[in-house]
Amino acid sequence: MEVFFLGTGAGIPAKLRNVTAIALKLLEERGSIWLFDCGEATQHQILHTSIKPRRIEKIFITHLHGDHIYGLPGLLASRSFQGGESPVTVYGPKGLKEFIEVSLKVSKTYLKYSLNIVEIEEGIIFDDNQFTVESKLLEHGVPSFGYRIVEKDRPGTLQVDKLQALGIPPGPIYKRIKDGEPVVLHDGRRVEANEFLGHPQQGRVVTVLGDTRSCDAVHSLAADADLLIHEATFSGEDSELAHEYFHSTTLQAGEAARNAKVKKLCITHISSRYNPELWEHLAQEARTVFPETIIAEDFLEVNIPLRKNTAD
Amino acid sequence: MEVFFLGTGAGIPAKLRNVTAIALKLLEERGSIWLFDCGEATQHQILHTSIKPRRIEKIFITHLHGDHIYGLPGLLASRSFQGGESPVTVYGPKGLKEFIEVSLKVSKTYLKYSLNIVEIEEGIIFDDNQFTVESKLLEHGVPSFGYRIVEKDRPGTLQVDKLQALGIPPGPIYKRIKDGEPVVLHDGRRVEANEFLGHPQQGRVVTVLGDTRSCDAVHSLAADADLLIHEATFSGEDSELAHEYFHSTTLQAGEAARNAKVKKLCITHISSRYNPELWEHLAQEARTVFPETIIAEDFLEVNIPLRKNTAD
Ligand SMILES: [Zn+2]
Ligand SMILES: [Zn+2]
Repeated sequence: MEVFFLGTGAGIPAKLRNVTAIALKLLEERGSIWLFDCGEATQHQILHTSIKPRRIEKIFITHLHGDHIYGLPGLLASRSFQGGESPVTVYGPKGLKEFIEVSLKVSKTYLKYSLNIVEIEEGIIFDDNQFTVESKLLEHGVPSFGYRIVEKDRPGTLQVDKLQALGIPPGPIYKRIKDGEPVVLHDGRRVEANEFLGHPQQGRVVTVLGDTRSCDAVHSLAADADLLIHEATFSGEDSELAHEYFHSTTLQAGEAARNAKVKKLCITHISSRYNPELWEHLAQEARTVFPETIIAEDFLEVNIPLRKNTAD
Repeated sequence: MEVFFLGTGAGIPAKLRNVTAIALKLLEERGSIWLFDCGEATQHQILHTSIKPRRIEKIFITHLHGDHIYGLPGLLASRSFQGGESPVTVYGPKGLKEFIEVSLKVSKTYLKYSLNIVEIEEGIIFDDNQFTVESKLLEHGVPSFGYRIVEKDRPGTLQVDKLQALGIPPGPIYKRIKDGEPVVLHDGRRVEANEFLGHPQQGRVVTVLGDTRSCDAVHSLAADADLLIHEATFSGEDSELAHEYFHSTTLQAGEAARNAKVKKLCITHISSRYNPELWEHLAQEARTVFPETIIAEDFLEVNIPLRKNTAD
């Protein structure tokens, strides 16, 4: 599981930071990629990576400002042109469906895969046996969602050696043990499944926020996350500007990370008013509040390691 | 007057050729730039040029396929964000208005300049004291326009020396002579204005075509043009593919240029199936029919020199 930043700028594209798009690479976990926002030229950025558009399974749009959605029609069209056939679901605020449908209709674009557009409210918007995604409204003048992506715990691996030492041969009983059912042996002895299972693997949590002022919703979205991706359009000194334009500062992002007790903070959506020499300074500002902070750059990949079992 | 190629690829963006956009630089003539088509990431391409978005006065869309329009909302929005205040007119086929208006509405984009969207038919779509633009339908499966941009002839410069030698002092009479009116001197002599005017400067003609099969409309659009910009999505060998997908080959572009007696042909909209080593070969194919051919590349600028006066 890795987060790959395709665009980390604010408002309009700049030479070194494109408008927003973030890929959550779930290639090992489910052979697919989830995209968060899709600013103009996201497909162009992808050309310079190993990401295959046909691997994109879901696209979560945080809000409908142009710098977060204008790359959608092109990406969806090119994915079809390049042979993508598996379905895609796009989640986002009300209005998203009209934008996508009119863009594809007017340009006479016919997709070769099924496209499902879900206009969401707050709550659990996706759940399967691997992941749950929860959305909550932030504070950005227009509806802007934050997403909490929760990987489910995986049961521990079956300790086959132990079972065989007890003379329990492979068979349906192995499956029952793996599923956590207690088992009665030939000699009538009842054994608990967890005696033969390694530690369960705790799932990871990634929180991706849309543009927002510092606000309460962040706290529950980000609680104990392995990685929090928080916008920091402005430097700590520019908190009035941040408030006026419904954005956050580096310091506010740091505070949110500290309060939510996340493992790592990555700030992004950096205004082009700060030239490259200032980027490290912006990260330092956030680190004064929350040391485990990095600043995103286009094409930065952040690994999200498996959680260590506390009992190990 | 120069043509600057911002995107010269076909269908989907590639690393070396972005989707279509062509700038006609009229900086000396009227301090402005006209854009022809606006594929996704046209504004990103512009970042690497000296073109100022606020200078863009008119945008002519040839047809509504995504690779020709998906960059419009972003370009229009960024032009406003960057302080563009002068009006913009966008011309193109029916459907253009819905695409632009929905994109701006959904993304809550409010432009600080007035935007005029004109859904055109065939005919003279623009005319002022400097330029006339004529549109004609081509053959591309969907309505696709070619544009003939005609610069008006400019009267010759006033030969002040000659006037002063005859004892005609500067005054309103100079203006009347410049406007071509005959003038009666103090001694009652009547002189024709053209005795005191240099040769009139003949206007230039540039023809920009949308995607098209080889078709008759090209002939009148391109007649005697100084520059014909013709798509050549396919190599001469792939004429069946070209026909099937409503596109042209290099040879067909060459034939159109020869038949219309243009001065120069520039082929563009090159399919990514032809890798860079083949580009010169594509140009050579067209040259077998029409020697004065060049192949466009992203960021190529083509100067359109003033016409020489035949009497000089
Ligand atoms: Zn934004
Ligand atoms: Zn095209």
